[in-house]
Amino acid sequence: MVVKSELKLIKSLQQKKCRNEHGLFVVEGKKTVEEVVNSSMKVYKLFAVDPSDLEVNYNDVVKVSSKELSQMSSLKNPNGYLGVFHIPNKSNKILSDWTLVLDGVQDPGNLGTIIRLCDWFGISDIVCSLDTVDCYNAKVLQATMGSITRVNIQYLDLIEFLKATKIPVYGTFMNGVSVTTSKLPKKGIMIMGNEGKGVSGAVAKLCTDRLAIPQFGGVTTESLNVASATAILLHEIRR
Amino acid sequence: MVVKSELKLIKSLQQKKCRNEHGLFVVEGKKTVEEVVNSSMKVYKLFAVDPSDLEVNYNDVVKVSSKELSQMSSLKNPNGYLGVFHIPNKSNKILSDWTLVLDGVQDPGNLGTIIRLCDWFGISDIVCSLDTVDCYNAKVLQATMGSITRVNIQYLDLIEFLKATKIPVYGTFMNGVSVTTSKLPKKGIMIMGNEGKGVSGAVAKLCTDRLAIPQFGGVTTESLNVASATAILLHEIRR
Repeated sequence: MVVKSELKLIKSLQQKKCRNEHGLFVVEGKKTVEEVVNSSMKVYKLFAVDPSDLEVNYNDVVKVSSKELSQMSSLKNPNGYLGVFHIPNKSNKILSDWTLVLDGVQDPGNLGTIIRLCDWFGISDIVCSLDTVDCYNAKVLQATMGSITRVNIQYLDLIEFLKATKIPVYGTFMNGVSVTTSKLPKKGIMIMGNEGKGVSGAVAKLCTDRLAIPQFGGVTTESLNVASATAILLHEIRR
Repeated sequence: MVVKSELKLIKSLQQKKCRNEHGLFVVEGKKTVEEVVNSSMKVYKLFAVDPSDLEVNYNDVVKVSSKELSQMSSLKNPNGYLGVFHIPNKSNKILSDWTLVLDGVQDPGNLGTIIRLCDWFGISDIVCSLDTVDCYNAKVLQATMGSITRVNIQYLDLIEFLKATKIPVYGTFMNGVSVTTSKLPKKGIMIMGNEGKGVSGAVAKLCTDRLAIPQFGGVTTESLNVASATAILLHEIRR
C-alpha cells in the first residue's frame, strides 16, 4: 500500500524542479535499482511488485500492486521495480586526470550514454553547463545503466570554471586538428558541444586547442552524434 | 486534402509488415525529408503544411492541414513535413573495403546511430541478421539524419553470408584482443552483437579474429553501448 500523498510526490519527481526541491530522484528497472541501492547512494524508498526477487542489501522494500507502480512510474510499461534515492551532495573537487565538459547537451539518451562512456574509460568527473539536460532525468538514468553511481557530475557556469583552470582545454570542432595526429597530455579538459550548435562561442574562446575527428565518408555527412564523438575522443585519450 | 484510404495506408506503414507489403517507407521532418528527396530514393508522395518552405527538386508536394498530418504521423508532435518513399532494391554486391555486420541489434536509436557512423567513416555496406530491427522503422530513420540514402543495408542469413566470405571476419567480444594492438587488414568484416547478449554463438564460431575495446574504468562497468563500440571500432579501422 502506498498513500496518495506519496504517489503524488514520486510522480512529481519526473520534473527537475520537484527533484531539486525534494532532493530526490527515481530509478526504474530491476538491474538499475539493484545497482543504485548497492552503491553509495542513499535510499529514500524502494517499491516492488515482488520484493523477494530484488537482490539488495536493504530490508524495507515496500510491496506494491502493478496499478500503484504504474501511478508512480514514468514508463509506459513499468517493469516491477522503482527506487527513490537522495540526490548526493556533489564533490566540487575534480579527481580524475581528464575532465569531460558538456556545453549544452540536450538529449537525455546522449547524456546517459556519455556518463556510461566516462565510467568505462575511467573519467570520474563530468562538468555540465547549466543548460545541459539534468542527469537525474528518467531517460538519462535509463541510458546510464547504473554508471551514474560511479561518475561525479557537476552543473556549473562553464565560463567561470574554464577561466579558473590551469590545464589545457580541448574543444571539439568540425575544423579542428585531427585527434589521431595530436599528442594529448596526461591531464586536460575535453569539451563536447550541443547536438545542433556545437561548442558555444564564449566557451570556444576559452579553448587552448581545437580537435576534430577525421571523416572518411562523402562531404554530405554533416556530423557525428555527440555520444559517438565522445566515445572516439575518450578512447583516444586512453589510447 | 488527403483521402481517407491514403491516410490509412500511410499510418499502416508504421508496421514493418505493411512497409514490406507496399514497398514504401515514411520519413518525417523538414531536413531529413529534403535530404531523402534530393537523393537517389524515389518519391511516392510528399506532404507539407507549408509546401513553399520545402527546398526540394520535386513539384508535386501535397498541402495538408496540421490535423491531417498528425493522422499520418508516428510522432507525438509532427513537425510539418512527411515524405513517403519507395524502398529501394538493395544491391547484393558488397562495394566497400570493410563491411559492418549487425547480429541482432534491437534498439532503433542504436541502428540509426550506426548507419550515421558508417556514412561518416565511408563504410558503404551493412549486413544485418534477419532479427535486427528494420532500417525503415521511424525511430531508426530519425536517428540516421539522412545517412540512410548513402549506405547500402541488406538483411541476410548471417551464417550463409559468413560461410561464403573469403575475407577476415572480426567479431567483438568482452574477452577479445585489444583493437589498439591489433593490426587490421585493408579489407574485412566487423561484427557487432545484440545489446544484451552480444554476438550469437553460431556467428561467433565463424569469426576468424576476436577483438575488444580496452576498458579503463572499474570492474563494475558492464559493457559499452553497441553504437559507442561501433564508433570506436570504425575509427580504428580508418585510423
